[in-house]
Amino acid sequence: MGNTIIVNYLSTINEYINTHRERFLNELLELLRIPSVSADPRHAPDVLRMAEAVKEQLVKAGADKVEVCATKGYPIVYGEKIIDPALPTVLVYGHYDVQPPDPLDLWTSGPFEPVIKKTDLHPDGAIFARGSCDDKGQVYMHIKAFELMIQTGSLPCNVKFMIEGEEEVGSSNLETYCVENKARLKADVILISDTGIIDNETPSITTGLRGLSYLEVEVTGPNRDLHSGLYGGAVANPINILCEMIASLKDRNNHITIPGFYDDVEVLSIEERAEMNRAPFSLDAYKKALDLSDVHGEEGYTTIERASIRPTLDVNGIWGGYTGEGAKTVIASKAYAKISMRLVPNQTNEKITELFSRHFERIAPKSVKVKVSPHHGGNPVVAPITSIGYKAASMAMEATFGKKPIPTRSGGSVPIVALFKKELGLDSILLGFGLDSDAIHSPNEHFGVFNYLKGIETIPMFYKHFVELSK
Amino acid sequence: MGNTIIVNYLSTINEYINTHRERFLNELLELLRIPSVSADPRHAPDVLRMAEAVKEQLVKAGADKVEVCATKGYPIVYGEKIIDPALPTVLVYGHYDVQPPDPLDLWTSGPFEPVIKKTDLHPDGAIFARGSCDDKGQVYMHIKAFELMIQTGSLPCNVKFMIEGEEEVGSSNLETYCVENKARLKADVILISDTGIIDNETPSITTGLRGLSYLEVEVTGPNRDLHSGLYGGAVANPINILCEMIASLKDRNNHITIPGFYDDVEVLSIEERAEMNRAPFSLDAYKKALDLSDVHGEEGYTTIERASIRPTLDVNGIWGGYTGEGAKTVIASKAYAKISMRLVPNQTNEKITELFSRHFERIAPKSVKVKVSPHHGGNPVVAPITSIGYKAASMAMEATFGKKPIPTRSGGSVPIVALFKKELGLDSILLGFGLDSDAIHSPNEHFGVFNYLKGIETIPMFYKHFVELSK
Repeated sequence: MGNTIIVNYLSTINEYINTHRERFLNELLELLRIPSVSADPRHAPDVLRMAEAVKEQLVKAGADKVEVCATKGYPIVYGEKIIDPALPTVLVYGHYDVQPPDPLDLWTSGPFEPVIKKTDLHPDGAIFARGSCDDKGQVYMHIKAFELMIQTGSLPCNVKFMIEGEEEVGSSNLETYCVENKARLKADVILISDTGIIDNETPSITTGLRGLSYLEVEVTGPNRDLHSGLYGGAVANPINILCEMIASLKDRNNHITIPGFYDDVEVLSIEERAEMNRAPFSLDAYKKALDLSDVHGEEGYTTIERASIRPTLDVNGIWGGYTGEGAKTVIASKAYAKISMRLVPNQTNEKITELFSRHFERIAPKSVKVKVSPHHGGNPVVAPITSIGYKAASMAMEATFGKKPIPTRSGGSVPIVALFKKELGLDSILLGFGLDSDAIHSPNEHFGVFNYLKGIETIPMFYKHFVELSK
Repeated sequence: MGNTIIVNYLSTINEYINTHRERFLNELLELLRIPSVSADPRHAPDVLRMAEAVKEQLVKAGADKVEVCATKGYPIVYGEKIIDPALPTVLVYGHYDVQPPDPLDLWTSGPFEPVIKKTDLHPDGAIFARGSCDDKGQVYMHIKAFELMIQTGSLPCNVKFMIEGEEEVGSSNLETYCVENKARLKADVILISDTGIIDNETPSITTGLRGLSYLEVEVTGPNRDLHSGLYGGAVANPINILCEMIASLKDRNNHITIPGFYDDVEVLSIEERAEMNRAPFSLDAYKKALDLSDVHGEEGYTTIERASIRPTLDVNGIWGGYTGEGAKTVIASKAYAKISMRLVPNQTNEKITELFSRHFERIAPKSVKVKVSPHHGGNPVVAPITSIGYKAASMAMEATFGKKPIPTRSGGSVPIVALFKKELGLDSILLGFGLDSDAIHSPNEHFGVFNYLKGIETIPMFYKHFVELSK
């Protein structure tokens, strides 16, 4: 394909986007009004409503056989457009569920009342709402890019959509769905937009992802809450004990102390580490953006390394005792924490969950009882940059950003990537358009209007190049 | 006063109690329906309603000059009966506010829907409700004993009542009230029922109380909640850091590590400790009652000692991050804890609060910000057992229990005892009738009907002996 054709196709794309810009934005805003929080059972009707909304949008965009497929949990929305079985097939994966919005008081506008506001990084405006970037906005880029290809008669291959509603709670029913629908899901590549780029001038493609092991622990001291004066000093306070147990999970160098934890961690060469640390990154800007006097992590590794090639252990939530206004002199009966570990190749969720559980029970003093409940997890992945899929994504971004994207390893997890490789035998291309500063999983999540439209512009180019390279 | 007179007076008392038993119980149940939770601003109208109810009961019982005295916080209810300025005066102190009732789901009946139920320790029944023992039930013993003395024409001296509404939140306005009302509060002894006895066959009088320093700490990491995948491992997680800081406050022997913390701790002689450990106490029964495999505390001390003559450090509440259903992969911006220390002679609240604050700020890593806010506190006290007040209390209990009470040191705090000594120059007699198992500050707080009526029976005997001994 010559440069002229590319330039022509790009102008076709941009013309379509410019014509429909307002509608593309308004349709997304509508979807963002649905509080499809999969972690909170009170939002179950909203999650189901969201599945129906995705179905409707796929139908409108031109997909066939669109179906809300029941699972044991929330449904998976499937749709397809088969133009010629002999042509390659792209399987688009995304999720329509979102993270819980709390703490609500830190949002400057309602998490489900989307508004477009300008920010320093987004002079064209950003869409503020839970799910704007993770992942409704990025899913909708694909639906609109699909509409664009249909409407401009440029869809060059087959496409299948699989949009699930349980990504934020561990994709518990996706594996069964994949196993039971292998024929239906047959494809040549999986395309996922649930990650980000370095910045709006520096495109990048995620080639590595950390895995995850997420657990909840409960420490029980006395069988009821006690008066801290009468019993204080004489019985185990489960909050103090929980703090001591959590503190003991890391040593002075912030090295995790669980026996066997690092056994399977891939050791990168000095050269690979040096290469990785050449990515554009300002420690000062990083600290300033987060208002930190200092970063904090494992001795001997840079911030980039700590957030990508090294495993972690973070408490995601802790609670126990009296947490209301004023003071209550109580020794709680129970204390709880949600603890997660990010995993790197070649750790596995199963093994680390087992090591953690065994260790946590072992270090509990006799004066308390401990319960460990695994929540969910996923395995880490590293994707090759030599595949046709990666090359097509790289060429597409080069065309739309005017710069070759940098392959990066992200600290986040998209556990389904390992699952797709295992069950469908397919590599996933992580063509995401978010920014680290988009505050996904935080109050004031947003997604740049630039990024949203850039996604819609880039995706058709990916299809074009993927088909060309597949020939 | 001969034995015959005592026996006669005791039968007078018991006859009156038997005649009015049902009314005494029903009146208390009415007061227990008012949720006068001083720590929770939403209950402000209830706390004020409770002050009015106390006023009304004092008036009905026969007190003069009854007044709801405004303070900067909740009012203090004052009332008196001066029969002859030449006679001694007993000043009764108590509080009409209560602890918050949470966790609500652990109550077997509503915290403000009092019911009388039989228990193993209370075959005559116990009144289940927040405040039944601490301190509405014990305050009301004094009002009913006063009524009894008025109605039977046996009040042998002057009496003054000072019932406050902020004891559970630190009695912030009591000191000012005492300073400004020195003449009005002039008395010979202060009588307080806000403690307990060893068991219903083993009367005891509290002669020592621990002090209290209660603080709230806040640890701030990044300026917003972050995605634990993108940032995990690279920035300080304030929950992990808070756990590490809390864990570091005690060493392996559960000795508190704050520099200077033990400097002023009174060292008891071997003999005193041996004497204290002769009190009836079964470690097996203690562990069984709390469903503990083991007790937990400072090395080198018994459970009795740990809960009375040794200072403590307990986390009373902790919170941060995601604490809802399911899993959220977040690094919180902030983590919080409420931490209190019980103090023993000769530690002071002021010094320990200062030592804690300075130490906690000092041990914070550079990667977080720490804020320490003192809540309230009080100094420890030890009362002499040679005073007229103590002797009168001992003789009164001996008369009504048939056994001489044991002087004990309690692990709890009644910070106002030190305040009364300082501002009014008066010793307080801690003539309490609760049991350790009454679950004060916990779900299912209760107060034995036996204990309630035994209090009403014992108090007039105290007055009688106090006046006799004062001659």
